[in-house]
Amino acid sequence: MKWVKVPPIAIGRLSEYLRALERLEREGRKAISSWRLAGETGINPAHVRRDLTYFGQFGRPGVGYEVSKLREKVASILGLGKERKMALVGVGNLGTALSSYKAFKERGFRIIALFDNDGKKIGKRRGNLTIQDIKELPRVVGRENIEIGLITVPASSAQEVSDALVAAGIKAILNLAPTRISVPERIIVINVDSTVALERVSHFLSASERKQGSHRR
Amino acid sequence: MKWVKVPPIAIGRLSEYLRALERLEREGRKAISSWRLAGETGINPAHVRRDLTYFGQFGRPGVGYEVSKLREKVASILGLGKERKMALVGVGNLGTALSSYKAFKERGFRIIALFDNDGKKIGKRRGNLTIQDIKELPRVVGRENIEIGLITVPASSAQEVSDALVAAGIKAILNLAPTRISVPERIIVINVDSTVALERVSHFLSASERKQGSHRR
Repeated sequence: MKWVKVPPIAIGRLSEYLRALERLEREGRKAISSWRLAGETGINPAHVRRDLTYFGQFGRPGVGYEVSKLREKVASILGLGKERKMALVGVGNLGTALSSYKAFKERGFRIIALFDNDGKKIGKRRGNLTIQDIKELPRVVGRENIEIGLITVPASSAQEVSDALVAAGIKAILNLAPTRISVPERIIVINVDSTVALERVSHFLSASERKQGSHRR
Repeated sequence: MKWVKVPPIAIGRLSEYLRALERLEREGRKAISSWRLAGETGINPAHVRRDLTYFGQFGRPGVGYEVSKLREKVASILGLGKERKMALVGVGNLGTALSSYKAFKERGFRIIALFDNDGKKIGKRRGNLTIQDIKELPRVVGRENIEIGLITVPASSAQEVSDALVAAGIKAILNLAPTRISVPERIIVINVDSTVALERVSHFLSASERKQGSHRR
């Protein structure tokens, strides 16, 4: 399939389209308009129409887009359909929660190794996996061809763990520690930071308070 | 302070600026250029310069922006500095991890109540809080004036919990369940979905694989 260049800002929207299209397919729907897809995802209709142009011209006037084809196309642009091996470092509550996360497996993201530096945790099991000593990281990443590292340690250890993952040969990092990490430019880093999400909530709450407090309604 | 209209797409960048400015302030830095702020955050310099115009014209040519003033301004636009009370529903591993999350408290986001529907969990403690029966939600939200609900239940229960939070009078929801929820338009919903983040990783991994596989470098 031809490679499609999608602006980085649109990638998150692709995930929303994918979820909506999967749901519509389960409900037996065959075709969908850009308008309806906007309604299903809560994304601005103008954005949806523009995003759909990235996928090529296979919508039909008066009929819309074939749900299953559009789903396949979006999944392909997201690089899904290939299994990706992951290692998780930091088996606290968050790490334990993610280690059994069904939604990861359904997308082909497989956590195949868990690491910690806490002697009381090493050797313990989480689901089918045994927690390994962080010292084993380089060996396991190399042997198993692990591509993605998940960081679920406290903020204070995140950079150290990131350095170890990079040195071990990982290509991408999902950083769930509430801090930013520095990596060489070739490494892909995506941060999942609930505090950033709450700051977004806070911004919109303040905005709506100011609107209510204003005389100009 | 005058209310500043910032495009929703820029809000996430404000959080990145805030983190960088706090770090620079701790390091004793007084002034910063837009160029340096771009370097510190990894955000495109053109974006940084445009974002800075939302904050008014208080940068000085050849000197740059005063770090502490810029930090205050960004925090104010994010609506920080006011305490926000939160209720968390679903005290599994993820809920337990978030219930003790220091980064929330530091920003004024206070989880003051934990709820679950599991009789084995109700009455147990997490830190200073006792897990309450979900049936108590309406009463507690009303009495404590809780504004934000955190959903940390499995995907299959997320909509039900969301409906209960909305009925109880919550204004905003941070949804950490790996599914989308439907709410009335007045409710602010922000999703934190690690699977979406991994799909972003997957997209960039695929993009770099295709680049390497191509003859056009």
